[in-house]
Amino acid sequence: MTYDDNNVFAKILRGELPCHKVYETEHVLAFMDIMPRGDGHVLVIPKAKSRNILDVKPDDLAELSKAVQVVARGVKDAFSADGLTIQQFNESAGGQVVFHLHVHVIPRFEGVPLKPHTGQMEANDKLAEFAEKIRAALQA
Amino acid sequence: MTYDDNNVFAKILRGELPCHKVYETEHVLAFMDIMPRGDGHVLVIPKAKSRNILDVKPDDLAELSKAVQVVARGVKDAFSADGLTIQQFNESAGGQVVFHLHVHVIPRFEGVPLKPHTGQMEANDKLAEFAEKIRAALQA
Repeated sequence: MTYDDNNVFAKILRGELPCHKVYETEHVLAFMDIMPRGDGHVLVIPKAKSRNILDVKPDDLAELSKAVQVVARGVKDAFSADGLTIQQFNESAGGQVVFHLHVHVIPRFEGVPLKPHTGQMEANDKLAEFAEKIRAALQA
Repeated sequence: MTYDDNNVFAKILRGELPCHKVYETEHVLAFMDIMPRGDGHVLVIPKAKSRNILDVKPDDLAELSKAVQVVARGVKDAFSADGLTIQQFNESAGGQVVFHLHVHVIPRFEGVPLKPHTGQMEANDKLAEFAEKIRAALQA
């Protein structure tokens, strides 16, 4: 399996597509999922070109995991969530749709199931509002 | 939230409960999930006492992520899987049942959905057979 430079996350990393950014370091970028399974659903990706967990360099994966923790804490605080579900899909059979490694960070609330993955897009102003809320929590 | 020394994974780490081990380092242990959502479902845990992603030390999380990659590749090879689904749950609302940080690594096959989480236990000899298969793939 190879890395396709034209996947949408590669385009976001190159600035060719917009995103609602919540966190960025030398190694990672985190932004709102535009088809969220719940309010505050964030994706965390490495800047390094990697298809999924099978081909990522261990050091890039370690940096990614540290960023996932930072984002998870920020998302939990921003939404006063009761918990978090973290998911990472590899290849189509594993649930992967975009072929650049990404980790889903989803705030969870008692009694509220995950929304099904319908492919329905969230309103842009709502995503902007959620991103602002998470950025504020991360800076607190 | 605090760490409870009597959770079942703490008991496994202390050798007070058995497990079907597939991988171990100074920092991590990986073993078969006894209530698997598919054949070859493995759990990877840090040896450090941490409740979930919210309290784990970043370096322990980095070691865990590297081990998850090793195990993911081994599981994929052992079962000739088409993909992998990786999940990590935090607090009850997030899906967490055992309160020691753990990562689910589940091999996936085209057209085969995840089994529901029924709480049904897998036969011991089947788990032993799967663990042997994964250990062999990891040593190859």
